[in-house]
Formats: sequence, structure tokens, C-alpha cells
Amino acid sequence: MKNSRFLNALLRKPVDATPVWMMRQAGRYLPEYRATREKAGDFLTLCKTPELACEVTLQPLDRYALDAAILFSDILTIPDAMGLGLSVNEGIGPRFERPVKTEQDIKNLAVPDMEDELGYVMNAVRLIRSELNGRVPLIGFSGSPWTLATYMIEGGSSKDFRETKTLMYQQPDLLHQLLETVAHSVTDYLNAQIAAGVQAVMIFDTWGGVLTTRDYASFSLRYMQQIVDGLNKGNGDDRIPVILFTKGGGLWLEQMADTGCDALGLDWSIEIGEARKRVGDKVALQGNMDPAMLRAPNERIREEVKHILNSYGEGSGHIFNLGHGITPDIDPAKVEVYVDAVHEFSRRGCC
Amino acid sequence: MKNSRFLNALLRKPVDATPVWMMRQAGRYLPEYRATREKAGDFLTLCKTPELACEVTLQPLDRYALDAAILFSDILTIPDAMGLGLSVNEGIGPRFERPVKTEQDIKNLAVPDMEDELGYVMNAVRLIRSELNGRVPLIGFSGSPWTLATYMIEGGSSKDFRETKTLMYQQPDLLHQLLETVAHSVTDYLNAQIAAGVQAVMIFDTWGGVLTTRDYASFSLRYMQQIVDGLNKGNGDDRIPVILFTKGGGLWLEQMADTGCDALGLDWSIEIGEARKRVGDKVALQGNMDPAMLRAPNERIREEVKHILNSYGEGSGHIFNLGHGITPDIDPAKVEVYVDAVHEFSRRGCC
Repeated sequence: MKNSRFLNALLRKPVDATPVWMMRQAGRYLPEYRATREKAGDFLTLCKTPELACEVTLQPLDRYALDAAILFSDILTIPDAMGLGLSVNEGIGPRFERPVKTEQDIKNLAVPDMEDELGYVMNAVRLIRSELNGRVPLIGFSGSPWTLATYMIEGGSSKDFRETKTLMYQQPDLLHQLLETVAHSVTDYLNAQIAAGVQAVMIFDTWGGVLTTRDYASFSLRYMQQIVDGLNKGNGDDRIPVILFTKGGGLWLEQMADTGCDALGLDWSIEIGEARKRVGDKVALQGNMDPAMLRAPNERIREEVKHILNSYGEGSGHIFNLGHGITPDIDPAKVEVYVDAVHEFSRRGCC
Repeated sequence: MKNSRFLNALLRKPVDATPVWMMRQAGRYLPEYRATREKAGDFLTLCKTPELACEVTLQPLDRYALDAAILFSDILTIPDAMGLGLSVNEGIGPRFERPVKTEQDIKNLAVPDMEDELGYVMNAVRLIRSELNGRVPLIGFSGSPWTLATYMIEGGSSKDFRETKTLMYQQPDLLHQLLETVAHSVTDYLNAQIAAGVQAVMIFDTWGGVLTTRDYASFSLRYMQQIVDGLNKGNGDDRIPVILFTKGGGLWLEQMADTGCDALGLDWSIEIGEARKRVGDKVALQGNMDPAMLRAPNERIREEVKHILNSYGEGSGHIFNLGHGITPDIDPAKVEVYVDAVHEFSRRGCC
């Protein structure tokens, strides 16, 4: 590995500068992404064609001094492989043709075969690893069981998660049954990604924050715990670090750190220094600049990067990131200001 | 006052049972509300006609043993009075015909005259107080300056607050200027409501939770602090308690309590007992059942009410509420289960 900053920071080993990457770094803000997306015809074809997924995964690395690559894919590949019929309109969001509506629908769900039904993901991982050729580590990922369940039940994005919460409060055992199947699938999926070559994994719990503390523990965190326990993480220098990210989960960092994961992703609402005080040396922290800050003047972006680095403080264990994905309207030149500021200020800080 | 539980709990004086009310208790889940709304023709006419606003304010009190009434109105009355041209479609949400787009738009904003331009609100307050005739206290309210600013700038509801955050990061002084004008307006507005007869006030910061900790302090909390400082709160037994509610503000309870407000509204994400540990005896706490729980079987609703009461624990200072407004799909019979459970379990607890 030519650049191990990211993996070292995840394991809280010394680093020469704070590593940085961005959620959705391969995305619509980049003209070269839009060109590949155009060539693919639609978003899912882009995900399902390893050569194209590889192409867009590498694009941001050619522009910026990023310290990690993340597999280009969608969090809804698992329910799609379960037969729910995914379509993605980048303007409107994802839709399932056959959402989970009845008890029988839940009983019919089966863990997909990873090579037969999700082989395109593993092929993309193998191709990206080969093309990266040790430049930076490759991150694999999945949605959390709770987050996937909301899409499977609502049939798409939701404002109030009405159907999912109704099921949760009226027939909790049935929801648990669905979550069990999804948690097994996510475990197999991430293990298959690890076998194919990803060097770290991240679980995106985009919607855990809409739950009460009690419901978060039993309907979201419990299943992420099962996954953390079931991953083939390996040992020592080959250990595959696991990052948990619950958007809106700032109240639950201690419980998340107790799962045995290696790092927590933070959204922008919390001061990273406060988060560090709360979790101590248990885990590394990844985050957490507001993506909207990338619309600010350059000096303001640099001031914010410096503030977040200072808030985290001395020592390793910080991976710089945005608090959520970069949005399509951002000027690509701003990303360079952000990435370079992280390295500049953190290198100065440590030397 | 025949029933002072609500005011006593806000001031942490002894109560015979935990008081309870619901955000949006006068709302679309009630058939009698829908009938009055129909009669009014549109939502804003309902808000702007004191007799009709009074009628819907009282409707839930006739059905349920609620311990407080809340003025029926909309949080966007102030920007409407500023000339932005409000229309409200209950399905889609509010829209401003003339949102704030330019520096000149911000400079042109003026504090509305409370009797000339918002007299309909004060007339509704006077009429409701007279009709209530001391049955329960009447709560007045306003949106927070930050929350009002987001609607004024975006022109309506928003998913990512793009325009507001762009202004915040590109021209913070201009946003502060807007917030100053709105904060003065809110202070005058709540003082006019107090003069007209409301017995407690609540500030709804629906969108403070989308900010970073630093930005929350300078763009939202700072202006709520100005309002708390500027209210004619009175003294002793006539003191008008002030409730601050930031949805998604669970990380900032200590700072909110430091404003000198009397109570904090809590959304459902936090355990109320944890919140109490953090703020100690500084403020009362209002909340915090997930409104989706009102779709559960009766016994599950009762179990949740008991859990929240036990989590708060012994002693006064708890006002039971939902963590957000009740939704239109709720069966009115469920509300009775909820309200009665609060009284039943808290009376048993205290005697």
C-alpha cells in the first residue's frame, strides 16, 4: 500500500497527516462522472457494470489527493437482489416495484446468493483493487438493516416512515424477522466484499436517527452488532476496520462504540471534540464537515477544516470526511480546497 | 384557574398528576376540525378568523382531559405580516410568493405592527381566554428566528436548506441582519400575545437541528436567547413560563437550559431521564412520545407512557407531550388512551 494513512488512522496508529475522503466522492458534482453516467444510460446500469463502476470509483482520485477510494454502488443492492425490483431516478430517488407489504412477503424474503445475485459488486471490487494497484485502500459498504428495511417497507424514500413505524409498533416480531434476514444478508455481503478485496467496511445507517433511544437499540443497533460480530475481520496488520455511521445518532455514540467497531462516522451536528471526549480511546472518529460548507468562500472552508482538526485535537484516530454525502451542485474546485486544507493543517499540526 | 397542573409543572411546583397536551392537538386527525376547516374554506382563513381559530382551539379540550390549550395559528404569521405573501396547502406545505432573495429584500424587512398586521392573532387569544373561562391555561407560540428564516429564504419547506445555508456560509452578516429583524418581531409578537392573555409561550425551532453545534449557537440559539431576555415574563405567581423546543437539538440541552427559559421541549430521540440528568433542576421538561406510537395497540401506548413517566422519575417538572405534532392519520380514540394513561399512571405514582 503506497498510502496507508486511512487504515492507520482507523486503527489509531500514527499518521503523517489526517487522512481525508468524502461520502459520494464519485458523484454528480464531477463532470467526468456525469459523462460516464450518460454512457451507462441509467444509474443502476452504472452500478451493475464493473468496468463503469470502477471508472467512476477512480475518477475523484485522479483529481484530488484523497486517502481512500470507496466502491461505487448503491445501498439498495441487497433488497434488489431479494427480488423487490429496484429502479433509481437520480432526481426523485429509489423506488421498489414490489415493496414488502404482508407477513407472507416477509416470510418469503431469503438471503441472496452473493456470487450469483450480487457478483457484479464483487467483480467491481476485484477490478477496482487491481486498477488501484495499492494507491489507496478501498472501502466496501452496505446500508444498515434498519435503513434497508425502511426502503423495503415504504417502497422508497420517506418523510415520516409511516409504514415501517406502524409495523414496528403493531407487529414488532414481524419487523424483527425481516431485520434478521437483512442482517444475515448484510453480513454475507460485506464478507463477500472483504473476500473480493475491500480493505475496510462502512455501514450506513442513514435513518437510525428517526428512532427513539429504546427503538434504536433494538431495531437498528442490535442488527449492526450482529454484523460486526459476524464479519471476517482478520487480525493484526490485515485487520479489516469497520466504521458505523448513524445519521442523527449523536446521542448514541457510546452504545455504538461498544459494538466493537473500529470507528464511528459522525454527521455535522456534533462537535468532533465532544464526541471524542465521550468515546475516549475506544474508536476512531470519521467526519464531520457540513457538506454545505463547500459552497463557502475558500478561506471559510479552510477555517472550518482547521476548526474541526483542532476540535479533534492531538493524536491519531481522525479520518476527515463530510458529515453526509457531497451534493451535486458543488463546484469541483472547492473539493480541492477542502482536501488540501486537511493535509496542510494536519501536517503542520503534527510536525 | 380550575386546572393549574400545566403551569405548576412548568415552574416545578407540586402537581397531583403529570399534565399532558399534544402539539397540533387542534388538527386534521379530528373530524370536527376538518368540518370547521371546510367551513373556513382554506387554512389561512381559519387562522385569520378569531371565531374559527377559537372554535378549533377548544375542540380537543371537549374530547380529552388535556391540561392546556394552545392557540390555533401558524408559525409563518410573522413573515406573512412582513409582506412575503403566504399560502398554505395542507397537503404540500406553506409557500411564500415573495421569498427573501437579495440583500435589498433583507434590508426592506421591517418589524410588523402587532395590532395592525397581526391583530387577528391577538383577537383570537382574547376570545379563547374568554371562552376557556379558566378551564386550562392557554399557550401562545412563535417559530424561532432561524426556523422562520429558513422558510423566508427557501420560499417554503426544504430538504437541505440550500439557499439558507449558502447565505449563512457566504454572507453571514446578511443572515444575521435578517435574524435580528425576525427576533425583534418574535419578541414583540410574543409580548403582544402575553398582553392579550396567553399564560405560557413556546418557541418552535423546528429546523435548528440541521445546524452544526457552532452554527446552532450563533444562528439559532443566540436569537432565542434575545427573545427570552426580551419577554415580559412577569414575576412570582403571574410569571409567564417560556418553553424552548429545538427538534433534533438533543445534543444542546445544556446550552438551551442556560438561556433562562423555564422548560425544554424534547423530541422523541432522547430518553427523558437522560435529558433530566443533563439539565438537572434548571428547567422543566416537556415530551416526548413518538407520535407514531399512537398507531400502536392500546396496551403498547400505555406501556410507552409508563416508560416515559418512569424514565423522568419522581418529582414535578414534567409536562407530557408528543415529541412532534400528531399526524392526520391518527384514530382520535387513541388520543384518549394516551391522555388518560398519563394521568392514571402519574397519579398512581405520586400517591
